[in-house]
Amino acid sequence: MMQNAARTNQTVADAIIVSDPFNGAPIGTVAETSADSVPELLDRARTGARIARSLPRHKRSAILEKTASLIAADKEDFAVLIVREAGKTITQARKEVTRCINTLKLSADEAKRNAGEVIPFDSYAGSEARQGWYTREPLGIIAAITPYNDPLNLVAHKLGPAIAGGNSILLKPSELTPLSAVKLVDTLVAAGLPDEIITVAIGGAELGRAIVSAKEVRMISFTGGFATGEAISKSAGIKKLAMDLGGNAPVIVMENSDFDAAVEGCVSGAYWAAGQNCIGTQRILVQRPIYERFRDEFVAQTLKLKTGNPLDADTDVGPMITEKAVGRASAMVERAIEAGATLLCGHQPSGNLYPPTVLENVPATCDAWNEEVFAPIVILEPFDSIEDAITLANSPEYSLHAGIFTNDLEDALDAADRIEAGGVMINDSSDYRFDAMPFGGFKYGSMGREGVRFAYEDMTQPKVVCVNRLKRS
Amino acid sequence: MMQNAARTNQTVADAIIVSDPFNGAPIGTVAETSADSVPELLDRARTGARIARSLPRHKRSAILEKTASLIAADKEDFAVLIVREAGKTITQARKEVTRCINTLKLSADEAKRNAGEVIPFDSYAGSEARQGWYTREPLGIIAAITPYNDPLNLVAHKLGPAIAGGNSILLKPSELTPLSAVKLVDTLVAAGLPDEIITVAIGGAELGRAIVSAKEVRMISFTGGFATGEAISKSAGIKKLAMDLGGNAPVIVMENSDFDAAVEGCVSGAYWAAGQNCIGTQRILVQRPIYERFRDEFVAQTLKLKTGNPLDADTDVGPMITEKAVGRASAMVERAIEAGATLLCGHQPSGNLYPPTVLENVPATCDAWNEEVFAPIVILEPFDSIEDAITLANSPEYSLHAGIFTNDLEDALDAADRIEAGGVMINDSSDYRFDAMPFGGFKYGSMGREGVRFAYEDMTQPKVVCVNRLKRS
Amino acid sequence: MMQNAARTNQTVADAIIVSDPFNGAPIGTVAETSADSVPELLDRARTGARIARSLPRHKRSAILEKTASLIAADKEDFAVLIVREAGKTITQARKEVTRCINTLKLSADEAKRNAGEVIPFDSYAGSEARQGWYTREPLGIIAAITPYNDPLNLVAHKLGPAIAGGNSILLKPSELTPLSAVKLVDTLVAAGLPDEIITVAIGGAELGRAIVSAKEVRMISFTGGFATGEAISKSAGIKKLAMDLGGNAPVIVMENSDFDAAVEGCVSGAYWAAGQNCIGTQRILVQRPIYERFRDEFVAQTLKLKTGNPLDADTDVGPMITEKAVGRASAMVERAIEAGATLLCGHQPSGNLYPPTVLENVPATCDAWNEEVFAPIVILEPFDSIEDAITLANSPEYSLHAGIFTNDLEDALDAADRIEAGGVMINDSSDYRFDAMPFGGFKYGSMGREGVRFAYEDMTQPKVVCVNRLKRS
Amino acid sequence: MMQNAARTNQTVADAIIVSDPFNGAPIGTVAETSADSVPELLDRARTGARIARSLPRHKRSAILEKTASLIAADKEDFAVLIVREAGKTITQARKEVTRCINTLKLSADEAKRNAGEVIPFDSYAGSEARQGWYTREPLGIIAAITPYNDPLNLVAHKLGPAIAGGNSILLKPSELTPLSAVKLVDTLVAAGLPDEIITVAIGGAELGRAIVSAKEVRMISFTGGFATGEAISKSAGIKKLAMDLGGNAPVIVMENSDFDAAVEGCVSGAYWAAGQNCIGTQRILVQRPIYERFRDEFVAQTLKLKTGNPLDADTDVGPMITEKAVGRASAMVERAIEAGATLLCGHQPSGNLYPPTVLENVPATCDAWNEEVFAPIVILEPFDSIEDAITLANSPEYSLHAGIFTNDLEDALDAADRIEAGGVMINDSSDYRFDAMPFGGFKYGSMGREGVRFAYEDMTQPKVVCVNRLKRS
Repeated sequence: MMQNAARTNQTVADAIIVSDPFNGAPIGTVAETSADSVPELLDRARTGARIARSLPRHKRSAILEKTASLIAADKEDFAVLIVREAGKTITQARKEVTRCINTLKLSADEAKRNAGEVIPFDSYAGSEARQGWYTREPLGIIAAITPYNDPLNLVAHKLGPAIAGGNSILLKPSELTPLSAVKLVDTLVAAGLPDEIITVAIGGAELGRAIVSAKEVRMISFTGGFATGEAISKSAGIKKLAMDLGGNAPVIVMENSDFDAAVEGCVSGAYWAAGQNCIGTQRILVQRPIYERFRDEFVAQTLKLKTGNPLDADTDVGPMITEKAVGRASAMVERAIEAGATLLCGHQPSGNLYPPTVLENVPATCDAWNEEVFAPIVILEPFDSIEDAITLANSPEYSLHAGIFTNDLEDALDAADRIEAGGVMINDSSDYRFDAMPFGGFKYGSMGREGVRFAYEDMTQPKVVCVNRLKRS
Repeated sequence: MMQNAARTNQTVADAIIVSDPFNGAPIGTVAETSADSVPELLDRARTGARIARSLPRHKRSAILEKTASLIAADKEDFAVLIVREAGKTITQARKEVTRCINTLKLSADEAKRNAGEVIPFDSYAGSEARQGWYTREPLGIIAAITPYNDPLNLVAHKLGPAIAGGNSILLKPSELTPLSAVKLVDTLVAAGLPDEIITVAIGGAELGRAIVSAKEVRMISFTGGFATGEAISKSAGIKKLAMDLGGNAPVIVMENSDFDAAVEGCVSGAYWAAGQNCIGTQRILVQRPIYERFRDEFVAQTLKLKTGNPLDADTDVGPMITEKAVGRASAMVERAIEAGATLLCGHQPSGNLYPPTVLENVPATCDAWNEEVFAPIVILEPFDSIEDAITLANSPEYSLHAGIFTNDLEDALDAADRIEAGGVMINDSSDYRFDAMPFGGFKYGSMGREGVRFAYEDMTQPKVVCVNRLKRS
Repeated sequence: MMQNAARTNQTVADAIIVSDPFNGAPIGTVAETSADSVPELLDRARTGARIARSLPRHKRSAILEKTASLIAADKEDFAVLIVREAGKTITQARKEVTRCINTLKLSADEAKRNAGEVIPFDSYAGSEARQGWYTREPLGIIAAITPYNDPLNLVAHKLGPAIAGGNSILLKPSELTPLSAVKLVDTLVAAGLPDEIITVAIGGAELGRAIVSAKEVRMISFTGGFATGEAISKSAGIKKLAMDLGGNAPVIVMENSDFDAAVEGCVSGAYWAAGQNCIGTQRILVQRPIYERFRDEFVAQTLKLKTGNPLDADTDVGPMITEKAVGRASAMVERAIEAGATLLCGHQPSGNLYPPTVLENVPATCDAWNEEVFAPIVILEPFDSIEDAITLANSPEYSLHAGIFTNDLEDALDAADRIEAGGVMINDSSDYRFDAMPFGGFKYGSMGREGVRFAYEDMTQPKVVCVNRLKRS
Repeated sequence: MMQNAARTNQTVADAIIVSDPFNGAPIGTVAETSADSVPELLDRARTGARIARSLPRHKRSAILEKTASLIAADKEDFAVLIVREAGKTITQARKEVTRCINTLKLSADEAKRNAGEVIPFDSYAGSEARQGWYTREPLGIIAAITPYNDPLNLVAHKLGPAIAGGNSILLKPSELTPLSAVKLVDTLVAAGLPDEIITVAIGGAELGRAIVSAKEVRMISFTGGFATGEAISKSAGIKKLAMDLGGNAPVIVMENSDFDAAVEGCVSGAYWAAGQNCIGTQRILVQRPIYERFRDEFVAQTLKLKTGNPLDADTDVGPMITEKAVGRASAMVERAIEAGATLLCGHQPSGNLYPPTVLENVPATCDAWNEEVFAPIVILEPFDSIEDAITLANSPEYSLHAGIFTNDLEDALDAADRIEAGGVMINDSSDYRFDAMPFGGFKYGSMGREGVRFAYEDMTQPKVVCVNRLKRS
């Protein structure tokens, strides 16, 4: 059955078959929403907005908290579904479910707070007779467009704060991985969310364009690729945009750091989710005196990783999402090698599997250096001074997270200051995110910040009420 | 001399002559910046961004505070300049200067605050060994595009918070009223602002497009018309947008209100700045039992207003900005009359002067009802119940501020809840703004909120620093 | 068995028998802690402080949330226990349990937030090279001394925020109602709270003095009577004090208010918990034109209330806590009558039952007017103008909450401004409290504010960390 | 003339002659306020409280800002007065004046902010029909009792936030240094502060007791010695107390630190204001491998310091406040030497001059190790591991600030965590304070926190306004 049909009131014309990226097996079917049906989606979303804004804060909070409990009770099913549609390993998928639960609980907390402030009108001469406040009000209809790589938690990061803020959501998940999103929405409804508050639409670029350009949509929250992000920004018109478009994360390893921790952290940061991770470590910059030792150990540990069936408990690296994605990554490596790069290991694709791949001597002109690879590919590069390392770290125009391994107080704080990234992790790889922190990048990495409290603020708007006390004037 | 040339490093090709809207006399000349020179502007702005981010907070604050003092010392010159280039009356212009001083002082305060927060990483299981914080960092280059109607304070609302946040600004003021903006920038530089932090570019739509689409610009803060706002939103690409596009403000007058205060407040709210005011009162909704009495008194008081030379102390309504603006307003009134509206007074344009004009019986299909008139034109409309009044108030799709006169507690709070506006003023017209409050509209009125603290947050971005305490892991 | 023995490591010398205020039946026994054993209590509490501060925030939060769930699952048992030891009616007791669950959930949320701020050191000239932050740290050992009238939720208001903040608690509940407190502590421990974090000590004034004057106790949070509050403040020495000492709440009823709502609200506010309620309505000030009508209706509704067995579902007013309490209240009424007051109904005590009692014409010199009665006794008094009403409202030197019934916007806001109370309820009696709001009084009513977030801040202290960046100096 | 007479309405009975601690010369006379006159002081303060609470925020702010400007214009006079009455060197005195200006400006900013919050009543089931907020209201009368060592800025830290919060102040400055306080109050009044808002009372312990125990005083903000602090805490009764009682600051110097910076920082931290400084460095703990080198260099630099006339530009260490203070300090050194300590330099008092004195081998039982010396005396002590250093640092029961010199990231953060102090300065001595940061100690060092924003919050109280929307119930 097409699980999302009820969420859209749609007559099902076409169906999208969702398949397992590891073995291509079909694992579910969803109804495809045509671009033509956007007016009806908006009707439903408009009703949803009316219902959502009238839900008192305690109900929004209770629904979100209940959803978190229901997911916790159904954790393994959610995890297996992520494995099956997104190809993450079961360990990674379980962690994603745990984080999703936290994201919803944080949203439940937020729904009960941050309601506004008293405005000190009498701090301006002439306004002594005025008093008032501002409240935080819903925006109305928010479009949420989400990617395949965290098919559950990145959806929760949009739905949670939007619901907490009293909004209606038009959700368009990746058509490659819609099942986790639909299951999350079903759970929200099972937990008491009025059905009309979320409208799910699954489909391609044409549908996306129709949603994005609809005048009644007050905000678009998008996580995905740069090209789509740019297209959205050009067709959205006057509406709020929040975007997480990925990065090209550097990690600096200083000579004085904890060597073992650095190797271990970088291996984990580079290959998590088969590198399909916007904060995955793409470039490891190693201080020259330890470069060779680091390289050897890093490659040795990389070679120990098992690539394969993501449902196997001992698999470290699962498949990439599609053959096209493998092809794109593989071609970047080819171009790098042609340009003079040295391949240290990996780079033998087999179907959707692409083993962890390490390069060195990559020219700075290569797209593997400058663009987001979004694959289990990592570049090693030596440097001399921290100055040089920071310059290298900042060279691409995309930046979300970065890392530095060092035990030197000055170097740590200096790197934190000068690396142009939304987050700098000290003694950790770039791949650390806490769901309550502000999350987003500098430069072309993103617009705005996610993280529950920050998204909640973005998804609400102040409304000022000012009383002119006529008898005091 | 072309006062802004030094602000742009530009070779002056063409010049723009600024003229007095009251009598057409030329009052100054500025260099026109061609769209071709945008690359050089960006070079300068990039240098400015580097300098701006390295200014410690106490310097940013001291410069803003010093600027406020210099303007206070030069208040009358600023006021006269506003009168001459924008046509506001001298009383209105003085008030704008006072508000500009406050805006800059609020910015000076803000520069010393709101530096970030400690992040409770240990509130997530598994992150016990982590500690850290986020700081508020500059965005880089911000484009500020400002309108003619508040040629000084609306510029200060963008420059102040941008400087407080450590940014470089590319300022494009209205080419009709660039002199106040240039004088403000000169004063900032005289107060110690490094010259490169603000780059002034004056010119037309082509220049605007080139600035707006420049990739290095990280944010566009625009106040102006809807059409331009839509054009910007379509060409900006991935950058933050903040927009104030105006409104169509309703004021509700309940039978139980203070009658005299209601008439006086509505007269002031309707005609301030010759109605060229995004929160000016455009539609006055009066409860039926007092409708005729209100109408008669309102028209009587309107007829007492003196339209004329804005430098005369007893002028109440100055000229509109251009003949084109008069023509547009006048045509809206004509169309309303043709559609059945009754003209109660006004509507005899003479040059740029357009006298206060009152209409009633305006059909809801007229653009005078639905669009922003931005002229000294006001519509009176009776209603029966508060339900009806709120429905009428919400009927256009633009909404910034609204007002209600009543002494009934329930009605006041009910209207505040249900009128879809960014600010609801109780016992006041829609035309009240305090420069520290969040300012902006619901629906199509705006994106984001100005008001110094809110703009400062929008013009900065969080940067997370997380230390993984390896010995505690 | 003496349920609290394990909580104190104490050798049980004496036992306190807890009895039902309705029928005097013994309902439980607790060990009495002697003042001599305070050094051992402090040893245990010191260990508890060490353990508490090392609990990561997620554990503190999880324990508090789990406790809330366990209480929700055991709600009726908690409610019956409150009825049996405190004499509240079952309806009132159930509401207290519901509020206690909310208080603990709010504390669980708070444990994950409010961790500190980044300090803008560079906003001071000369400190450019410094950066840093402050965190919120535990105080150490907090003594919590709680009263009989809300034997569960007022304990939760101290334990919840103290645990959220990482403190150890020395809890001394009322020896009249220790069982709910012990059951709450047992539930916390069952939910995973390390045992040493709370030490329960039950006993009399001598024990209280020994705890209060112990140097290691860093804060005393006390809710109870004025005399004890004063004694504590004189013997505590250098430690933080938070006190809620009660009030003498006025409610103003304006002629233009909703009459039925006013009567109903005042009846509920006056007799809840047999008036043993620090925000209970003690004085009702009624505008003269409706005074007689209000009086008659108020007395009529009072007479409908059923006083009796608090376990009966239809009982409205249960017993007072002790015969001594009845005697104190009754004597205040006697003195008022002697001084000229008119008794309108009530005032026939029977054991611990004291029926709802209404007085009028009470001279302003009576203690029934000036002191806290803490019994189901209410005074009616007419007034002419709102000025007079506010003067009457403010006449005692105790003030916690107040109320006003009016639909006049100016009067409502004027009263809110000028009544000297920690909370002014508009169109409600004084007896409204939301557990997240700041709660406490002006004048001699209290010191500090409870309400979870506010108590959390009070129960933690900032610690500044400042790094001098030597290379930047 | 007795400059403070006008501030108290007092009939002058006795006079206090203020003399220069360097040469004993009389430098001014103030009226002594007798304890009997406290009722009149309270009358005046009560009037002041009424006036203060009615001052709109913009006036409070403007007065504080104007005062800051007036002091800036009169800076050298203020500095010389500090030198003459407190014996600080002219360099130290100028810095104090600069800080006082900043404290007042921070207070001016604060007066315009932090006005309250909207309360999300609807986040609790059953409260959906309620809405409201809390404002920050004045406390009423605050007693400020200030010490001699920062006779200007420590007064500003109490007056500034108290005025910002709308309070009346009863100021009792040290009778040794009342002139700076009186000059500050005169300047506030010259800047427009209504006279009755501050009442100055100068006198001894009896006066202090009378003020402290007055029921109408709602808060006592005290900076001074432990004995007085304890006495106040026992006689104050139910009023808020804020206390800064000093410390016994340790600084840890790790082997891996910047040696020169450590020596220089410790010399400055130890002798500033002749050690009469609650965050002055009293114990320097040096890692053993560099202990002897550090000791030799530290003593060498100490011996270069010039003790003498504080008005001479090249004097490093001025006189102590009184001969009694010298005697107390000298006796502590004598007792330490008797107990086995080694005197490395200093300890030859001459009148009120006491040269910088360095001890080593001080037994942990000495009062020079355990109590606050408040004199230019410092103890050197070697240690082996950072564990040992932290244990030594924490051994006294007083703690305000501490410092550590290290470039090791883990050690720096570990020390920051585990040193029990209100502020831990990394790569700095304990003697750093920024007037906007939260300032106060752990353990017996203090109660509450100063720092303008924090003091403002402490000196105001929330008032809740809740509207029950009857039509929505």
